[in-house]
Amino acid sequence: MRIADRIKRLGTETAFVVSAEAAAFAVKGNKVYPFHLGDMNIITPGNIIEAATRAMKDGKTGYCPNAGIPGLRETLAADVSASHGVAYTMENIAIQPGGKPTIGKFFLALMNPGDEVLYPNPGYPIYESQIEFHGGTALPYGYNEGPENFLLDMEAIERQITPRTKLLVLNDLQNPTSAECTMAELERLAELVRDHDLYVLCDEAYFDIRYSGKSVSFASLPGMAERCVLLYTFSKKFAVTGWRLGAAIGPKEIIDVIAKLNVNDESCSNHFIQHALIEGLTGDQSEPRKILETLKKRRDTAVDILNSIEGVRSFRPEATFYLFPNVTGAMKNKGINDYDQFRRAILEKSGVSVCTRLHFGRALEGETNYYIRLAYSGIDTTEIEEGLHKLKVFLES
Amino acid sequence: MRIADRIKRLGTETAFVVSAEAAAFAVKGNKVYPFHLGDMNIITPGNIIEAATRAMKDGKTGYCPNAGIPGLRETLAADVSASHGVAYTMENIAIQPGGKPTIGKFFLALMNPGDEVLYPNPGYPIYESQIEFHGGTALPYGYNEGPENFLLDMEAIERQITPRTKLLVLNDLQNPTSAECTMAELERLAELVRDHDLYVLCDEAYFDIRYSGKSVSFASLPGMAERCVLLYTFSKKFAVTGWRLGAAIGPKEIIDVIAKLNVNDESCSNHFIQHALIEGLTGDQSEPRKILETLKKRRDTAVDILNSIEGVRSFRPEATFYLFPNVTGAMKNKGINDYDQFRRAILEKSGVSVCTRLHFGRALEGETNYYIRLAYSGIDTTEIEEGLHKLKVFLES
Repeated sequence: MRIADRIKRLGTETAFVVSAEAAAFAVKGNKVYPFHLGDMNIITPGNIIEAATRAMKDGKTGYCPNAGIPGLRETLAADVSASHGVAYTMENIAIQPGGKPTIGKFFLALMNPGDEVLYPNPGYPIYESQIEFHGGTALPYGYNEGPENFLLDMEAIERQITPRTKLLVLNDLQNPTSAECTMAELERLAELVRDHDLYVLCDEAYFDIRYSGKSVSFASLPGMAERCVLLYTFSKKFAVTGWRLGAAIGPKEIIDVIAKLNVNDESCSNHFIQHALIEGLTGDQSEPRKILETLKKRRDTAVDILNSIEGVRSFRPEATFYLFPNVTGAMKNKGINDYDQFRRAILEKSGVSVCTRLHFGRALEGETNYYIRLAYSGIDTTEIEEGLHKLKVFLES
Repeated sequence: MRIADRIKRLGTETAFVVSAEAAAFAVKGNKVYPFHLGDMNIITPGNIIEAATRAMKDGKTGYCPNAGIPGLRETLAADVSASHGVAYTMENIAIQPGGKPTIGKFFLALMNPGDEVLYPNPGYPIYESQIEFHGGTALPYGYNEGPENFLLDMEAIERQITPRTKLLVLNDLQNPTSAECTMAELERLAELVRDHDLYVLCDEAYFDIRYSGKSVSFASLPGMAERCVLLYTFSKKFAVTGWRLGAAIGPKEIIDVIAKLNVNDESCSNHFIQHALIEGLTGDQSEPRKILETLKKRRDTAVDILNSIEGVRSFRPEATFYLFPNVTGAMKNKGINDYDQFRRAILEKSGVSVCTRLHFGRALEGETNYYIRLAYSGIDTTEIEEGLHKLKVFLES
């Protein structure tokens, strides 16, 4: 077999290994508490399912425009313009089969081989994979614990910018840390972007998953809308992760290129689902609100128990459905200094299945604290209680 | 704006321009007969729509495995093994969001920059676009009129093979010509593939759209299954073009790479649609059979009228839903020797909207005949009659 050389540079999501191990553990008759994957165990709102069924029966089953149906592009433009304070029109939107396709298409559209790209680490592992796969140089920046949440390691960003740095990936309301930029951080980033003529992928997958306050888009800062491509997804807000619908939103000239990539890669996104998500955006919002209430209860339950465990420390983030507790003390108490060993011990002794920091990138130089990531999107409150109490028993024994 | 250099090498489907012109002509109050796009005006079978609805309500709305749900991969493996006479298992299958994604992923997985790739021209324009976009050298081969259908220009293939030739694209049951390889052609191709150590993308989008006889897959020839990746699509057989579901089928080692590309590009294909197409493959086949009957009637109506027009000559192909009549005489009669001028004259004078040979690649050296392409998948028999009679009147006036 003669596989192309570029495949050597292709990364993956190692979290799928955790899923496989959890499944294997469950098959042996063990109870598993699934905190490892960012999927949702919440059913899609009924009005969206009904709208999809109606659209299928209405014959919305043929091809549709490469960039999406005008109705959805217009509706989404209005919705995002309102939430972001930026004037987008349908020309700024190319619908995608999920949030993820925007990542690869952003790099294909804007990155030349050899370009340097700043990206978050710990972070969603597909950034680094796609940067390196398409010939870029991936420069990681990290996060540090602040008083109430993680803070961007601004110094790491500033230090690494060179004339070869062309792009920045910003995942505000971040996976896995749930970090949220302060206005001061956003303003300093905007200054850097302007000064160094950067373009930005704003991964806003969790923009609408928040429990108090209001999300602020980096694209809303002066001069940034023309430098940002937003990764938008319907997945979390409407519990449609497996439906696969999202969008790339940004300057028309870039969106036109991304739509041309659509022509080449998948023709178009599913036709009737686009109609269903017009209903999602414009119909009754009580079910999406209920989803947020459910998630908030889960967050509080999880944070309270985690913070009661000796050697574990978790923030209570206002957005996303992830917790990234510091477990340095707990690992020390158990005499474990290897991430995978710790993860497997937790699974075997308590049934709690988690990802570790290493599922979100290689550890950075000088990193001395240990973290695990818990997603509470796919597990009910009672199970969170039961599982994390077992975890507490194990870690404190 | 700073668009990446590689975008200069990205092609597109120029047929969308024809759609836009037809739509603009219709908006002015003119009747349009849409023969230009390979979409279907046939509604998806009811049992598939019901299965999709059921799966949504059953909560098949979350993520699913990157390569597809095991149930669909197993069902499809059994189905394709039976129709192809090749023993595929689910490990040979990576589900895709449509047929098209297999094209780009095949080249990403197997083509290094500078590799030469033989591809059909006239042919689906995305082959050339993806070859050149990812740094390959695209070498076109054409088709010649035989006694009953188009024949592969085998001489062009043989003449162009060099030690740098690594891949071959074969679209048997071809778009736009509807050419179908003879066994002798398939055997000679297999010899060339073996002798020159080639790998093959078999675009089998129209494998199941045939009116008599039986489709033969190139992968069924001795030694070919391990060198072929099949582009499979549910789109045409089940009238689900806009649902976006297909598959890459081939040797496990290549499929594993393609599944890793799935992780990076779109995570997975829609979850509940995969359940719906298990029903498509295993449920009642009377509606898919009816689709073929409908298409056959359309074919015969279109071929009969086309062949009654002075200066027009069409084969009656046993597969696909395309006709590629030779219109050299008709163009001469009208004093037109420019493709776009001819196409626009037809539209304006008869309302018949078609693609020309140039929507399927640049004309090859020495090409002296003129061809247009008519798709009869999106237009009813009565409209075919009405439209092509108007075309006859115009071309013979």
